Amino acid sequence: MTQEPKIAYFTEDASVETVNARVSESTDARLQTVMASLVRHLHAFVKDVELTQAEWDIAIDFLTKTGQICDENRQEFILLSDVLGVSMLVDAINNRRPTGATENTVLGPFHVDGVPEYEMGANITQAGGRETCRFYGTVTDLDGNPVEGARIDVWSDSEDGFYDVQQPDIQPRNNNRGVFTTGPDGRYWFEGIKPVSYPIPDDGPVGKMLGKLGRHPYRPAHMHFIVSAEGFDPVTTHTFVAGDKYLTSDAVFGVKESLIAEFTPVENGETLWESNYDFVLHRSE
Amino acid sequence: MTQEPKIAYFTEDASVETVNARVSESTDARLQTVMASLVRHLHAFVKDVELTQAEWDIAIDFLTKTGQICDENRQEFILLSDVLGVSMLVDAINNRRPTGATENTVLGPFHVDGVPEYEMGANITQAGGRETCRFYGTVTDLDGNPVEGARIDVWSDSEDGFYDVQQPDIQPRNNNRGVFTTGPDGRYWFEGIKPVSYPIPDDGPVGKMLGKLGRHPYRPAHMHFIVSAEGFDPVTTHTFVAGDKYLTSDAVFGVKESLIAEFTPVENGETLWESNYDFVLHRSE
Repeated sequence: MTQEPKIAYFTEDASVETVNARVSESTDARLQTVMASLVRHLHAFVKDVELTQAEWDIAIDFLTKTGQICDENRQEFILLSDVLGVSMLVDAINNRRPTGATENTVLGPFHVDGVPEYEMGANITQAGGRETCRFYGTVTDLDGNPVEGARIDVWSDSEDGFYDVQQPDIQPRNNNRGVFTTGPDGRYWFEGIKPVSYPIPDDGPVGKMLGKLGRHPYRPAHMHFIVSAEGFDPVTTHTFVAGDKYLTSDAVFGVKESLIAEFTPVENGETLWESNYDFVLHRSE
Repeated sequence: MTQEPKIAYFTEDASVETVNARVSESTDARLQTVMASLVRHLHAFVKDVELTQAEWDIAIDFLTKTGQICDENRQEFILLSDVLGVSMLVDAINNRRPTGATENTVLGPFHVDGVPEYEMGANITQAGGRETCRFYGTVTDLDGNPVEGARIDVWSDSEDGFYDVQQPDIQPRNNNRGVFTTGPDGRYWFEGIKPVSYPIPDDGPVGKMLGKLGRHPYRPAHMHFIVSAEGFDPVTTHTFVAGDKYLTSDAVFGVKESLIAEFTPVENGETLWESNYDFVLHRSE
């Protein structure tokens, strides 16, 4: 008697196995692993909450609108990943470092390639600013040796809480962005503005979701840094302004205690500030 | 001494708790439950596979493109849900019925409201077709009593494998769609075409994904039905053409054994077919 293989039609109980069994054996091994895990966790979520048809409709509509609001200056799926803590989780998993090395945080959607390289000391604020800030510090290895030739890519919002790419009409370009390179002493210093806290774009699906969850859309004030040097793991991070009222409730969960930096007023006023932060790089393995 | 609450900055280990703790206590209870589970399973997936930054980039790009290809006649996120087995799972969870009652399957993205209502026996094929099929059967309750006034909403692809909404230029509208209502005998009969297997739209992100997984995009030939009557749970389902070569590999996992129907040639040729299927409705609770 011939034995026919049991045909696996879809059932609620075996939903994961049925879907994953369909993948061809010749599929890239990593893709098989990722997709099998995705299907397993996605089905577990649906079963866990017994998602209703109406909730599924809302999810489809939400995802569609999230895609459709994206354009060259707006990336709503990155925002979604950010506010769900996924961006920080991926960053954490991929940037585990020994104690003492500067910690990473999220890149965010506003980094730009190809910005001007400046001499140390330059001011990156092209469009003016009331509260100037001198940023300075050192780049060293874990033993305290200065790192020469470290590339320091910095960017921040302007005093109205927007990045230049969010305001394409404002000239000149590359406002509050610049690249610097350390000399043999590993020191860096430049001027910019004291960054301000700002809401992530909250007029789209992600902003509406935050509203329904009773969460505010604000990020604490921060300066972005990417510090990279030959032979070391690059560090993508921010320094956060100590005392900012959103430090403990960053909408994208970016704050780590080690990244909070003092911003100190100088010259008897609040129109000039200083902020010192020292970067410690971990040698690549 | 004042005790300050421990500030929960993001850590890899406590990622789920940190994100879920941010939700306001006044948030709708069901929304809290769904979001907490979503974050838990999503983070578990990322940790399970240790998603790389490059893979995250691919995921963001994939989701964005999936949203952007959607328009009034194309819903790529429904396709994504379908090919991952999520649509069938949601359908299964929300439509558990006693043995003997007709089983549900996915609605699919091609249902249209407000199509013409016809007398029993009418032909729903507006734009011609080579292989006519007589569909007939009964609508009864679980005890075998005929259901009078059952509304039968039917639709299928045309012989070239497209639904009318995918070909907005072809007239007349509502090709291969119609609504019928049973009389006191609970019987239904109408004419259409013998449906054909077809690929789900595979020129977008979901089609590319299927390609990488070594999965074909075909659905076995089927006729769509929504059968509803006062006092009964509505049934959204298909009948599948027995013998179709894609029955065991439906791209959207829609096939259930109980939904496979014989399509029998009549009158010494293959240009006229018959297909009998009896629907059994479960009284609403």
